[in-house]
Amino acid sequence: MDQSKISRILAAMKEQGLTQLIVSDPAAIFYLTGTWIHPGERMLALYLNVSGGHKLIINRLFPQKDPLGVELIWYDDTQDAVELLSRYTEKDRPLGIDKTWPAGFLLRLQELNGASAYRNSSHIIDDVRRIKDAKEQQLMREASLANDRVMEQLIPLTGKGFTEKELERKVRELYAASGHSDVSFPPITAYGKSGADPHHSTDSTRGKRGDSVVLDIGGILNNYCSDMTRTVFLEEVSQKARQVYEIVREAQQRGIDAARPGARMCDVDNACRSYITEMGYGDAFTHRTGHSIGIEDHESGDVSAVNESMIQPGQVFSIEPGIYLPEEGIGVRIEDLVLITEDGCEVLNHFPKDLIVVPLED
Amino acid sequence: MDQSKISRILAAMKEQGLTQLIVSDPAAIFYLTGTWIHPGERMLALYLNVSGGHKLIINRLFPQKDPLGVELIWYDDTQDAVELLSRYTEKDRPLGIDKTWPAGFLLRLQELNGASAYRNSSHIIDDVRRIKDAKEQQLMREASLANDRVMEQLIPLTGKGFTEKELERKVRELYAASGHSDVSFPPITAYGKSGADPHHSTDSTRGKRGDSVVLDIGGILNNYCSDMTRTVFLEEVSQKARQVYEIVREAQQRGIDAARPGARMCDVDNACRSYITEMGYGDAFTHRTGHSIGIEDHESGDVSAVNESMIQPGQVFSIEPGIYLPEEGIGVRIEDLVLITEDGCEVLNHFPKDLIVVPLED
Repeated sequence: MDQSKISRILAAMKEQGLTQLIVSDPAAIFYLTGTWIHPGERMLALYLNVSGGHKLIINRLFPQKDPLGVELIWYDDTQDAVELLSRYTEKDRPLGIDKTWPAGFLLRLQELNGASAYRNSSHIIDDVRRIKDAKEQQLMREASLANDRVMEQLIPLTGKGFTEKELERKVRELYAASGHSDVSFPPITAYGKSGADPHHSTDSTRGKRGDSVVLDIGGILNNYCSDMTRTVFLEEVSQKARQVYEIVREAQQRGIDAARPGARMCDVDNACRSYITEMGYGDAFTHRTGHSIGIEDHESGDVSAVNESMIQPGQVFSIEPGIYLPEEGIGVRIEDLVLITEDGCEVLNHFPKDLIVVPLED
Repeated sequence: MDQSKISRILAAMKEQGLTQLIVSDPAAIFYLTGTWIHPGERMLALYLNVSGGHKLIINRLFPQKDPLGVELIWYDDTQDAVELLSRYTEKDRPLGIDKTWPAGFLLRLQELNGASAYRNSSHIIDDVRRIKDAKEQQLMREASLANDRVMEQLIPLTGKGFTEKELERKVRELYAASGHSDVSFPPITAYGKSGADPHHSTDSTRGKRGDSVVLDIGGILNNYCSDMTRTVFLEEVSQKARQVYEIVREAQQRGIDAARPGARMCDVDNACRSYITEMGYGDAFTHRTGHSIGIEDHESGDVSAVNESMIQPGQVFSIEPGIYLPEEGIGVRIEDLVLITEDGCEVLNHFPKDLIVVPLED
């Protein structure tokens, strides 16, 4: 296990008066051990105690080649995994639980009186994960650079008459061909009206003259996620669409300028939102401004009006304002990832944000 | 909601002395309402009560076009969804909970004293889902017929020099091209040694003369899953491999012959396993014989030595014995789905099981 990360988690546990914690989220276990284990419906539980003696309870179906730096307690399908776990818990003390731990395991542990109380303690790990260390920062940089290159290859394809679904498949191929293990979320490749609906599912629509094309894409490179959006136009762009584009671009820049230690997450949201509102499109910016990102595309810590937490160096999040006018078939979103530095932020995406018009081929 | 399915669930609840139940698994909610809702990290809970007044607590982000046949209780991200749910529960009675419900919701409901006790009650729905009704049986038939056709198209491709990963991609394309919404699990396309490791991850291996090729594939057609395995050989087959193939084939047939109402699930496992053991390969058959299947590829109800439940008409499960000899690079598995009828079973796969040798192209 990564001792520096573990130390930060144990310190947070002590601060909150918690002596023991079960980590069950595979992403959190990867974060701490450097190994992805996907247990499916079987129990996988990392038991942490502020006094040490951490243990990973793991099914024999998942043999490990590399040392995980923690004692492994093996069980097989004939055994009661939760009963095994309960042999290690302090029965007279509260126990922290991951919010995603399946209820079947928790109910069984409660039946066995595994602890004096059970607390949702995911925030302890989430808070540590949110601050990327130097190695993670470098991996996030590299993932976003690779994403810029995918965007560069993708944009010319928008004019080639593909349906949204075909274009989505092209995006997946571009990630596969450039060393990514997978996309970090289902790619959005939305023409015109489709792009004006932020919840649109990619379909068989083809782009036509004047359409905006929202390209919201990301991949997983060396276990770290990228995520960016560019909006381009096919063949021509109306005056209204150009105006909307420039407003979103300026709003996004204002968000970037507001992203620095000492500001709050909601200040970044407000920097984008207040400008869009001022320009008359407040109602058309229908979602939060962004989200934290790392080994998962969406990590805890929104850029939204209700998140008043202070921004700290090492955080990485998206800044992605948008304006959606479904009746006029205009949808524009621009998104970069930013890494918070000591006195501001480093924008991890370098692909330009000037308005691009792509020629339509027949 | 499907009234016949709901009636069967309410009857089972009464039988077990349970008046109220929370269904949270999206597959179970699809099973009852006919609609897939993927709530991500947000709460989605179908509250069932034996006295009626069922309710679906659902986030406004998931608007519904079609009527679900149940009262919808909407909430948004500013609200405490569990508190809303707790307004409907009977506080002085036990409450059934899905085993996969995230602990964060359960802990909050316990904090609110939502019920007098909390019981893992997934088995109630699982038991009902296991018995497919006439409409589901027809959909399972059609899904397996389509799977046979994909297998037919796939087998000639095994000799064309593709890597396992390339072949996996071909499988996905075949499903997409034949009306499937997705694969029902990541396809296994394993050459030689790879096929001798049942936990092998598809990699860049290419097939070579004499290799066995394990093809374990399935798709999702009209929301129902298929799943089948055939093992073919490249260019030539050793005497030992041929022997192993015929043993697996006979074992699988014995499993099919044992699959009938009145027998137990473990009897099917034993029919395959005892023959393979008798032929000297008992240690090389390292997994259970099969699993139930329906709207999910793996549903509750194993074909294994420890499952003593009685087989009933309407069940659908896989019969998939295998022999794995990693040191000799031989892996053979043969799998069909069977539907239990009044007096035996209907094999849903019709693709032949004679040994196939595929010519290798250079």
